[in-house]
Amino acid sequence: LGVIPLGERFRDQLPLGDVGLVTLGEGSTPLLASPRLSERLGAEVWLKWEGANPTGSFKDRGMTVAVSRALADGAGAVVCASTGNTAASAAAYAARAGLAALILQPAGAVARGKIAQALATGARLVEIQGSFDETLSVASALAEQGTHVLVNSLNPLRLEGQKTAAFELVAELNGPPDVVALPYGGGGNACAYGQGFREAGAGLPNFVLGEAAVRAETAASAIRIGRPAHEKAATALVEASGGAVVPLSDAEILAAWRDLAHGEGLFCEPSSAAGVAALFRRPPPAGSRVVCIITGHGLKDPDAVARESTDVRSLPPDPKLVAEAVR
Amino acid sequence: LGVIPLGERFRDQLPLGDVGLVTLGEGSTPLLASPRLSERLGAEVWLKWEGANPTGSFKDRGMTVAVSRALADGAGAVVCASTGNTAASAAAYAARAGLAALILQPAGAVARGKIAQALATGARLVEIQGSFDETLSVASALAEQGTHVLVNSLNPLRLEGQKTAAFELVAELNGPPDVVALPYGGGGNACAYGQGFREAGAGLPNFVLGEAAVRAETAASAIRIGRPAHEKAATALVEASGGAVVPLSDAEILAAWRDLAHGEGLFCEPSSAAGVAALFRRPPPAGSRVVCIITGHGLKDPDAVARESTDVRSLPPDPKLVAEAVR
Repeated sequence: LGVIPLGERFRDQLPLGDVGLVTLGEGSTPLLASPRLSERLGAEVWLKWEGANPTGSFKDRGMTVAVSRALADGAGAVVCASTGNTAASAAAYAARAGLAALILQPAGAVARGKIAQALATGARLVEIQGSFDETLSVASALAEQGTHVLVNSLNPLRLEGQKTAAFELVAELNGPPDVVALPYGGGGNACAYGQGFREAGAGLPNFVLGEAAVRAETAASAIRIGRPAHEKAATALVEASGGAVVPLSDAEILAAWRDLAHGEGLFCEPSSAAGVAALFRRPPPAGSRVVCIITGHGLKDPDAVARESTDVRSLPPDPKLVAEAVR
Repeated sequence: LGVIPLGERFRDQLPLGDVGLVTLGEGSTPLLASPRLSERLGAEVWLKWEGANPTGSFKDRGMTVAVSRALADGAGAVVCASTGNTAASAAAYAARAGLAALILQPAGAVARGKIAQALATGARLVEIQGSFDETLSVASALAEQGTHVLVNSLNPLRLEGQKTAAFELVAELNGPPDVVALPYGGGGNACAYGQGFREAGAGLPNFVLGEAAVRAETAASAIRIGRPAHEKAATALVEASGGAVVPLSDAEILAAWRDLAHGEGLFCEPSSAAGVAALFRRPPPAGSRVVCIITGHGLKDPDAVARESTDVRSLPPDPKLVAEAVR
């Protein structure tokens, strides 16, 4: 019915057995041609639009698998340490499943706005007086006690679900692209794509990962991660694929974000443009086929727009005056 | 590739001829089962999740058709009078097409936040010192002068595109539902569904439209429309279908919005819940098949969440204390 949920479409390649799916219609996202980036980079550039997922980010691909399994295993609640997209996704899928969701947030880490989406779907939010690592430790401890299932990306079912985006690309392009460009926060998503391409038996594209040069303080909030949890595996993948990790200034990330919005009409989170920004610094081979993973919707971070917006003219309701003003 | 754009999927039923498509991957949205609403209403209830469209609302279905045609006809710019979802959609599709977008906004009508999405994709914004009707008159006058193509719903190509949602429902359910429930702002979307069901030759469901009882002042900003532009046609459709227009208090709309978020995990704009709220007042026949059209994403209106959110506990990083606090 409508979109086939990824847990159904790829059930044979996921550790789901025959469990009932907790789904909000995730996956099968648009793959958009990118004429302006193609011209600029001298390559065939595509955009995988993950902001179309139910809660507006790629996190939903993993959450449907993790929460389906948690429900089937008799869990009563899920827990995660997060302030952003993971929290929003965990809260929505838990609500869909009829489970409680507990979101642990490091004190003072992020503005309240970032957590609004999780609160809207009924999650319980607790602020932990400590670092992100301490917060994650509390979440893990609750999971070990058996009261909650951990749905951070330490839960391998998360990356299992996220690998399906690589399956989709192989199906859509009749093979893997030559280059895949991704934002690099914790590194889990890059690893999931690597796993997906390997399982598809279709060869490994070059992985080009854009990370914030000053990780802990970047304006690109979804990749504001000091210590990437999957650094070792992500680095190994990049090396095995002949790709690169590209450290970027905020100005470079925001310039790529503006290019996507003004040039292609695609409004994403600033962090989602990090893969594109990395390609500007490390151009793909001429004529190669490139996919940029656009990980989250621009509505996730309206503050980024507010910082950009310009003055607005105010005019009387006279078509002549308006026509003159905008000529 | 990925999602088939609605202009391609339904080209034979749209006034597009063989024009090139301006697409961001719109349409083919999820149709989600709604177990909790089904139980509560004693019917088979489905949710058509239009927030999955590229700019987060159903407006994209019409905008791809209107802007594709405008580009093919040699236009240089589009114009609309809007402060919300229409503006966001017009701006994104214009950027995608390489056209300029001019958004005219009645003075003091809406908060700046509502327009952030349009600004992000490079639209020009002008505030008009007058009412919405005066603002629309200016937009129409610019269109008559030939400098801009009007992409408000007065442009019939908009409703042509929006009718494709009815085609999808007929395909997904192997026939029309018995009841379709929609928010009622300007009335154009209801008319588009009516046209779609008629053209599908599949019989007309009962149309149940939820409108704000105090139209001009409702908190449900996307249906805050004093005078519905398509009132006559929408009323005729409701009567022909044996349905009803249900005036709702803001409390009823917000209660339905919370039910969708907490009960089904679906985070929509408050206005998008008006169809569901209408069903609570006018329950569907027992066992009938009902589709609620969920028109836009919750991230469109984060202020609604801010008004809801509760106190947050702050605790030291001690699993025992956290476990006790959330027990």
